[in-house]
Amino acid sequence: MTSLDISTLEREMPVSIGILTISDRASRGEYEDKGGPGIVAALTDLLATPWQPMSVIVPDERELIENALADLADHQGCSLILTTGGTGPALRDVTPEATEAVCKKMMPGFGELMRTASLREVPTAILSRQTAGIRGKSLIINLPGKPSAIRTCLDAVFAAVPYCIDLIGGYRLETNPAFCKAFRPKA
Amino acid sequence: MTSLDISTLEREMPVSIGILTISDRASRGEYEDKGGPGIVAALTDLLATPWQPMSVIVPDERELIENALADLADHQGCSLILTTGGTGPALRDVTPEATEAVCKKMMPGFGELMRTASLREVPTAILSRQTAGIRGKSLIINLPGKPSAIRTCLDAVFAAVPYCIDLIGGYRLETNPAFCKAFRPKA
Amino acid sequence: MTSLDISTLEREMPVSIGILTISDRASRGEYEDKGGPGIVAALTDLLATPWQPMSVIVPDERELIENALADLADHQGCSLILTTGGTGPALRDVTPEATEAVCKKMMPGFGELMRTASLREVPTAILSRQTAGIRGKSLIINLPGKPSAIRTCLDAVFAAVPYCIDLIGGYRLETNPAFCKAFRPKA
Repeated sequence: MTSLDISTLEREMPVSIGILTISDRASRGEYEDKGGPGIVAALTDLLATPWQPMSVIVPDERELIENALADLADHQGCSLILTTGGTGPALRDVTPEATEAVCKKMMPGFGELMRTASLREVPTAILSRQTAGIRGKSLIINLPGKPSAIRTCLDAVFAAVPYCIDLIGGYRLETNPAFCKAFRPKA
Repeated sequence: MTSLDISTLEREMPVSIGILTISDRASRGEYEDKGGPGIVAALTDLLATPWQPMSVIVPDERELIENALADLADHQGCSLILTTGGTGPALRDVTPEATEAVCKKMMPGFGELMRTASLREVPTAILSRQTAGIRGKSLIINLPGKPSAIRTCLDAVFAAVPYCIDLIGGYRLETNPAFCKAFRPKA
Repeated sequence: MTSLDISTLEREMPVSIGILTISDRASRGEYEDKGGPGIVAALTDLLATPWQPMSVIVPDERELIENALADLADHQGCSLILTTGGTGPALRDVTPEATEAVCKKMMPGFGELMRTASLREVPTAILSRQTAGIRGKSLIINLPGKPSAIRTCLDAVFAAVPYCIDLIGGYRLETNPAFCKAFRPKA
């Protein structure tokens, strides 16, 4: 194998994106996970860079969510981690608290813009407590549970995601311009 | 009395809504409380469910605000508690801090949307630090002090309030469609 | 000197506005500070009140930022302090955390509105974690690093700045109506 081959291989190695479904019922197998596949479908449109999902399902337990996020960020090489579920006001909804607990920096602009975008569809969008934050070289973004709402939120913020990951030293992502034009300011 | 009578009676028992006026001057009787009556007037339009106000007035003291919120939530059966006053930047304005201290979960979407709505009226809307949060089965929402601003804020968020209270296991509220169409997503 | 002279003198004494540039490279002199002069240029348009800049440059170190903010607020008489730089997601960006550490009250409406205004220009505006808060009689506002983005942010929020400073007992600022109409609600 020549060095050209290796380079080609490396260039084509898919990046890993963490997809964490947070749901008591889905984790027990009582309910088919729709959030995780919804994220996969959206990313298939949005990304030009070859990627592979690292999918995990956990119940609505803070410790388990925190452990899963930390593992995806610290050991699985996921510079981007997307969660689905657990962002509402109900007793078992603790995804934002778990996200904040594992992040060093919070990114309030993501939650604000995702709620604003979702509000154009349903007035109950303000009940989502979804947030985003940085852990090491990973960006973690909370998404809703429903696939249609997931798509609305990703469409709202994704143009800023590749540059954010550049700034924290993660992998380089290229978007599919038919669906999203990533913005990188000139230095 | 037959069981039908009891059922009818129960159905017509008004729900209690906490209305907490936070003002040094109003609590000393030096100033007529306008915020509390402003909330009552707005709810009279917005709600179809029979309700009764549980009105309390306290000065701008964190401990007294926290005690009043906890009592309305834990002992007075108020699944909805609305505060008026104390959300600005001045030294004595501590309502958001008191609210956060008694809530297990914060609901950032409420403050964001209420400020956005108020900004259409006055540029100083960004000075309001109003927030919302969940304590047990109660939703607490901070409102401004002025009746016209109270109405702007309630009109902005109220369509999401009944479903939020459903999700936390509180009482069922129906809105008056002439003023507000509550939104409950299909399960 | 007559008392009339003193009064005239006092009226014309410029107020001090803190301008804190936060940048590793600018603090080492490797890079010309553009954020600080960008703030001066914007204020020159926006303010009618005579003012003077109290300009400081520090690296992206929390302790140094916190000390500089505390000094400008507590000892230099700056009722308004504007920072530039250090609000992004990168490892060295710690301006919002330093700001929160020295403030007694946070003002979430400023960050929300500045991001909303910046989003009309670049989708990466959501990556700014800029915030604002109150320390004693001082309002501290985080601004971006680029002069054009600084101007966008100041234009978005400045109409509310003089009244905010009134409410916390700081100096009185008058704006230049050609650029900004300060809003002060009637008592």
